[in-house]
Amino acid sequence: MRDLTLIGIGTGNPDHLTLAGARAINGADLILVPRKGADKADLADLRRQILAGVLTNPATRVVEFDLPRRDTANPDYHAGVVDWHDAIAGAWAVAAASAPDAERVALLVWGDPSLYDSSLRIAARLVPAPRLRVIPGITAIAALCAAHAIPLNDVGAPFVVTTGRCLRERGFPPGCDTCVVMLDGETSFARLPPQGLTIWWGAYLGMDTQILEHGPLAQAGPRIVAARAAARRRHGWIMDIYLLRRTSQRVA
Amino acid sequence: MRDLTLIGIGTGNPDHLTLAGARAINGADLILVPRKGADKADLADLRRQILAGVLTNPATRVVEFDLPRRDTANPDYHAGVVDWHDAIAGAWAVAAASAPDAERVALLVWGDPSLYDSSLRIAARLVPAPRLRVIPGITAIAALCAAHAIPLNDVGAPFVVTTGRCLRERGFPPGCDTCVVMLDGETSFARLPPQGLTIWWGAYLGMDTQILEHGPLAQAGPRIVAARAAARRRHGWIMDIYLLRRTSQRVA
Repeated sequence: MRDLTLIGIGTGNPDHLTLAGARAINGADLILVPRKGADKADLADLRRQILAGVLTNPATRVVEFDLPRRDTANPDYHAGVVDWHDAIAGAWAVAAASAPDAERVALLVWGDPSLYDSSLRIAARLVPAPRLRVIPGITAIAALCAAHAIPLNDVGAPFVVTTGRCLRERGFPPGCDTCVVMLDGETSFARLPPQGLTIWWGAYLGMDTQILEHGPLAQAGPRIVAARAAARRRHGWIMDIYLLRRTSQRVA
Repeated sequence: MRDLTLIGIGTGNPDHLTLAGARAINGADLILVPRKGADKADLADLRRQILAGVLTNPATRVVEFDLPRRDTANPDYHAGVVDWHDAIAGAWAVAAASAPDAERVALLVWGDPSLYDSSLRIAARLVPAPRLRVIPGITAIAALCAAHAIPLNDVGAPFVVTTGRCLRERGFPPGCDTCVVMLDGETSFARLPPQGLTIWWGAYLGMDTQILEHGPLAQAGPRIVAARAAARRRHGWIMDIYLLRRTSQRVA
C-alpha cells in the first residue's frame, strides 16, 4: 500500500459522489469495503451500488472486510476508541494483504472523511505510512440543510457542531444561536428547555427511506422521538442528525 | 420560473461537482450564471468550465447576468445585506425573464448552498415563490481539511464555524478547541494571542492556484499574512479559509 485515498461518498444517495470521487475509484488498484454487520447491511449495499454505478476500470479489485466493533462496555470512552482504531487499522492491513501487489488503495468513507470520521486517525497507524490523499464528500450537515432547503447559519453568524453526548453534558452551546448535533443515539434534544428553539431533523438522509421533521422543539421534539424509535425498529439501525436554532432574533 | 434548483458546485475544482449536480444541470431549462466583475472573472470562468464539462442537454439555455454589488459603505451591515439581497433577487428575475418559457431554472452556487451563502434567502424574495430544491455541494471546510488531510474535529468533540468579524469582536470561541473561520478579509487570526494555537490555512482551494500553509500560529501566522497579500495582488482577488486548533490536549 503505497498510496491510500479516502473518498468521501456523501450520506446515502449514490449521486452524492463527486466527479473527483468517481475518478479516484477508477484510479485505485484495490478498494476496501467494510461490512458493519447485518443490522447495517444497507450501508455496505450502498457502497456496492456506488461501485456498480461508476467503476469501469477492469483492473480495480474490490475486497470486503468485517469492521471490528467498538467495545461499548469500556467505561473509558477515549481509551475504547483508541483500541477500536487500532483494531480497524489491523483489519485494513489484513484486507490489503489479500492483494499484495496493490499499490493504490482506496476506501469509501461515509459523508466526508474530515467530519466525525476516524479514517485519518486510523490511517496514521499504518506502518509503513502510505501517502494519504483525501477526496472531500457531501457532509450530513449539507445534506440535512439541503433536504430542508434551509441555510445553516444566520447572516454573518457563527454556529456550533457538536455531539449528542456534549449536548447532554453541556446544554445548548454558548455564544451562538445555531447548533448542529451529530452522533446522538439518545434524542438528547429532548432534555433541553424547548422554549425559543426550533429543530430541523433528518434520518437516512439522501436514501429512499429519508425522513424529515421540523418545527418548534416543544411540538416537533416528541414527534421526532416517536418517528425515530419506529424507524429504528423497522430498519434495525438509524443514522440521523439535527439542527437546533434559537428563533427569537432572526435576520432575513 | 416554476422550479428553482440551487446546485452546490464545490470550491473551485470542477470535479467537486456531484453526480446529482451534473444531473440537475441537465434537467434545467435555464441556468443563470452570475458575473462578479473583472476582478473575479476566474469564478465565472469556473462555472463556464463546469457547464462545458457536463452539460449535454441541447435544450438547456445558459444566461449570464451581472451580480449587483453590496454597498460596503453602509454602516449598518445587516441593512446593507438586506438591500443587496433585494437587488440580487431583482437581477435573477430580470435574467430569467430573458427566457420566459423556462420553467426549471438552476443556479450554480459556490461551495454548498447552506453555508455562508445567501441564495436561499434571496430565493425567498421571488414572487410568485418557485418550488425550491437544493443539491448539496462540497464545502470550503471539507475542501480545506481534505487538502491538509486533517480531521476537522477531535474525537467526540465540538467545533465552531465563525467569521473573521466575529473572531475579531469575540476572540476564540468559548467551549471548544477547534474553530473554522470563513469570510475573513482581514487575517483576523493575527489579533489572537498565538500561544497554544495551530493554524491550517488554504486559499483558492481546489483550483490550480491553491495555496496551503500550516503550523503553530506564532510562526505560520506571519507567513500566511505575507502569502495572502502577495496572492491577492497577483490574482486581484482571494478566497480563503482557515482552521485554528488549541493543541494542548489532543487525543489520537
